[in-house]
Amino acid sequence: MPEGRSHPETIAELIDRRFGFATGLGHGLPANPALAALIDRRVTRKFRPDPIPEALLDAVLAAAQSAPSKSDLQQYSIIVLTDPAPIARIAGWISSMPWIADAPCFLVFCGDVFRGRTACAMHDMPHANDNLDTFLNAAVDAALAMAATMAAADSSGLGSCPISYVRNHVEKIAPLLGLPQGVFPVAGLALGWPEHRNLPSMRLPPSVVVHRGRYHSEALETELRAYDARRGAREPLKPDRLKNHEVYGAAEGVGWSGNSARQLSVPERYGFRAWLRTRGLAVD
Amino acid sequence: MPEGRSHPETIAELIDRRFGFATGLGHGLPANPALAALIDRRVTRKFRPDPIPEALLDAVLAAAQSAPSKSDLQQYSIIVLTDPAPIARIAGWISSMPWIADAPCFLVFCGDVFRGRTACAMHDMPHANDNLDTFLNAAVDAALAMAATMAAADSSGLGSCPISYVRNHVEKIAPLLGLPQGVFPVAGLALGWPEHRNLPSMRLPPSVVVHRGRYHSEALETELRAYDARRGAREPLKPDRLKNHEVYGAAEGVGWSGNSARQLSVPERYGFRAWLRTRGLAVD
Repeated sequence: MPEGRSHPETIAELIDRRFGFATGLGHGLPANPALAALIDRRVTRKFRPDPIPEALLDAVLAAAQSAPSKSDLQQYSIIVLTDPAPIARIAGWISSMPWIADAPCFLVFCGDVFRGRTACAMHDMPHANDNLDTFLNAAVDAALAMAATMAAADSSGLGSCPISYVRNHVEKIAPLLGLPQGVFPVAGLALGWPEHRNLPSMRLPPSVVVHRGRYHSEALETELRAYDARRGAREPLKPDRLKNHEVYGAAEGVGWSGNSARQLSVPERYGFRAWLRTRGLAVD
Repeated sequence: MPEGRSHPETIAELIDRRFGFATGLGHGLPANPALAALIDRRVTRKFRPDPIPEALLDAVLAAAQSAPSKSDLQQYSIIVLTDPAPIARIAGWISSMPWIADAPCFLVFCGDVFRGRTACAMHDMPHANDNLDTFLNAAVDAALAMAATMAAADSSGLGSCPISYVRNHVEKIAPLLGLPQGVFPVAGLALGWPEHRNLPSMRLPPSVVVHRGRYHSEALETELRAYDARRGAREPLKPDRLKNHEVYGAAEGVGWSGNSARQLSVPERYGFRAWLRTRGLAVD
């Protein structure tokens, strides 16, 4: 399995490694380092202590702001932490992810309805979009900015790990970051120089996720069982490291679909909407 | 203003063009085509009729599936339209965006809770996450996949335009695409070969969107007025092409903040949550 940042493989080989079988996809495409890097993306869960040079961090954040934004409204904000103290506090709250504390930079991508409300107030107009659609627009703006950040980081040798678990601690993170009413965390992003590269995560086959013409689910269960088997052969789940271990205990031979069921059968962050209401977001 | 896909400019020059003033950011960084492309991203609103080769489309979609996904749950689906008939129907519904009809490919990125419910049913477990947090996880998964699609397309000379307006027509798009209960459109993406490159959209200054240490809004109104002036000098808004023209009519000298207020003061897609309920999504 190749290490490092070179891409000797063809696009077709990278696609097959991503999916864990001979897909027959992408044959004959010319070499393209940027496309190869996207298909060969890895998460980083161990960082070297070196800081990120300011000019590089600024450029990565400019790439974030170059992402598209719904109706040009730019309804998101990015909080940048480089001081170890607040990063350590967040890492302490998310104790299952020790790599957060090692990252020299931690970003929090937030949906931001506060700025639009300010624009309305500046022009003596009511803000009339405190609904689920606006919440979604703001969250998607934040996600698109985070994706551009990850791609920009990757292009520069940096690594990253998205952290939705910041939403498990919104009542502490919002005051830590001084978020005003109308601003909510979507995801964190640990950012820094990779200590090593993880393997690429094996994905559901395109036949399950990518639907030509219309949604197809006739073969879904069969395909999920085959995916469970492929993943289990390459990266078997550890019986004592399964989702919701506290609820269900250890088990042998659980695959991706079984582990997903363990996760989705226990309510997660079910108070999020109630918390948003305390921050002036009805999300109706 | 340079045309084409070469990046003769330095990262610092691209940053300054993105923001429309001398930011002082990104100086001294080495040339990096992938980073430059992200900072120089443009929307495409005019496509050549040429189709996208299948191997390239497959590779772009493999890049989409290589995006990160919350807890490895992969709660999204992509519907791929290359037949002109359904693309023309969607274009007909979104009559303000004629470039949709010209695109040889139209993608619809959907949040997908159906697959997780199927996984739970396969393992005789209840699905207990029909809440706002899961809705957000699925929507963000879809957005991250769309961002990777856009970057992969850009790396290969393709252009794209995200279309949140598919959500203005969910009651027609969902049956057109055969979406099962639990699957909802987040955004469309018109994809194809650019007829020409648009100029980069000028962004809010980093001081407004990127917050060091904690959220800062003390100078927000002042900065928004300065941004209005900068944008107005480079790309003035046409008095008869403002947001919600039908409600407010034409006006001279409206800037970004005023146009945003015009948009946000009129409820948009306020029935989205009610529609989601008809699709078996409580979003509580």
